[in-house]
Amino acid sequence: MANNDHLAEYLIAPDPGAARLTRAVPAVDHLGQSQEVRVIEERPLTIFLNKREIVTAMTIGDYPEYLALGFLRNQGMLAEDEEITGVDFDEELETVVVRTAVETDYEDKLARKTRTSGCAVGTVFGDMMEGLAGVKLPDAELRTSWLYALSDKINRTPSLYLTAGALHGTVLCQRDRPLVYMEDVGRHNAVDKAAGWMLSNNATAADKILYTTGRLTSEMVIKTAMMGIPVLASRSGFTAWGVEIANQVGLTLIGRMRGRRFQCLAGAERLVRDADPSLVPDEDKKHRRKGAYQG
Amino acid sequence: MANNDHLAEYLIAPDPGAARLTRAVPAVDHLGQSQEVRVIEERPLTIFLNKREIVTAMTIGDYPEYLALGFLRNQGMLAEDEEITGVDFDEELETVVVRTAVETDYEDKLARKTRTSGCAVGTVFGDMMEGLAGVKLPDAELRTSWLYALSDKINRTPSLYLTAGALHGTVLCQRDRPLVYMEDVGRHNAVDKAAGWMLSNNATAADKILYTTGRLTSEMVIKTAMMGIPVLASRSGFTAWGVEIANQVGLTLIGRMRGRRFQCLAGAERLVRDADPSLVPDEDKKHRRKGAYQG
Repeated sequence: MANNDHLAEYLIAPDPGAARLTRAVPAVDHLGQSQEVRVIEERPLTIFLNKREIVTAMTIGDYPEYLALGFLRNQGMLAEDEEITGVDFDEELETVVVRTAVETDYEDKLARKTRTSGCAVGTVFGDMMEGLAGVKLPDAELRTSWLYALSDKINRTPSLYLTAGALHGTVLCQRDRPLVYMEDVGRHNAVDKAAGWMLSNNATAADKILYTTGRLTSEMVIKTAMMGIPVLASRSGFTAWGVEIANQVGLTLIGRMRGRRFQCLAGAERLVRDADPSLVPDEDKKHRRKGAYQG
Repeated sequence: MANNDHLAEYLIAPDPGAARLTRAVPAVDHLGQSQEVRVIEERPLTIFLNKREIVTAMTIGDYPEYLALGFLRNQGMLAEDEEITGVDFDEELETVVVRTAVETDYEDKLARKTRTSGCAVGTVFGDMMEGLAGVKLPDAELRTSWLYALSDKINRTPSLYLTAGALHGTVLCQRDRPLVYMEDVGRHNAVDKAAGWMLSNNATAADKILYTTGRLTSEMVIKTAMMGIPVLASRSGFTAWGVEIANQVGLTLIGRMRGRRFQCLAGAERLVRDADPSLVPDEDKKHRRKGAYQG
């Protein structure tokens, strides 16, 4: 099936040919033969909120503005109604500065916490858990026919992963339509880039489905909840804390989605079983290999 | 081949039965059938160096002392000859405190940098790159027969991954012998736990091989170099910066190692081709699925 009609459904699809994102590197293989291998670029990007440096992310370097906006939003450092006055990327300095009309207290809060905790990782994680307090995700319908259609379309989409490997993908979807497909060396970056796109386009969250190739860890679940998206689906597995948080915020958590199979570990009440699994083909070898989503 | 003689070669092997590491969670599958799924635990662990809180890691929670020691060593916060006076794990507080005879300047350095950078991720990364200055890894021999033997033994080792998925594995090896097999939700934690074991057991690094299921990113390459290990091998792919740093420090970088196939992107001069690849069986489906190392 070389049917690629579904590619027209994307607002943003991967660009495997983008010269700046991959590099050809000399290699020798198991037979001792020299060859060239395409590998993914990995660059530091330092994100500033107004005057304060917040984090340095390792990223492939596409959509730095979306990454910065999405990261700050998912950390709860930008309010939903925040007035953003500028997002400036400097390629040479490898920095993005996000400016807000009102300087939030997050900068001070972070500074305070950082001094006491010595590390913004714990800090930022603390912020995220705080940000979750009281979050209840909206009602939504999740048809199994959409899950199967999305899986199939995403598997058949040309990606940087298929070119260079060592990448994770996140696809923002609506019903059975994949809208925005982001890839990155860090699976959290891919999600943050999708969040940044949503913020920049005032996209509604209640009718969306987030698909990721990565594992359903606590941080992935928290980010999805911060984005207000009621459904998170993945090819990969779960962690106990991820499942706990999903139940707490009312997120539907679908994992180990391959071919006709999937497991739902939270929010199963949203599932509408309108597809007959026995009619869904198993993934062929090529797609099964995509399970090895680390190239 | 249910031959498990190789398990006797391990000094530390995975403990898939350990009650504290996994949890049974109710699930519904694609057929609407209820089932119980075993998922991996994920817990915060906060690492202190003397009086200073350094980082909060998300970990499965086994070998917290090794994780703390290995993390600090790999960040260059513990010198090779550092006199460590205590490593105290508090399960209730989820903290590990590493005490040194002489308080290093790393705490102050980190505090300083943290204040200026606002995040220890960038900071710590900066420390790691500094730590690498002048590192040249020792000469070593790498027989392809060892690579094939290790791959086969590791694939046939019962693991938490096979029980609960969503895990990465790192195996510290010597010639064709797997010594210490660590797993964690974060692939960096698995490497740090192996590093902590080495530090605690004064293990030599020059004759070791590090095997990981994870991708060969810059941070993985830096950690391996900080451990003084001349060979890093993986089932997964590469990033351009990882390859660059491997060439800089003289690390042999083997990736996409599956069945008879592998690619060497740095340090190929250490390879001794003493095995005939055509005699190496391809991985069967079960092992191929292990490529999907995220469960």
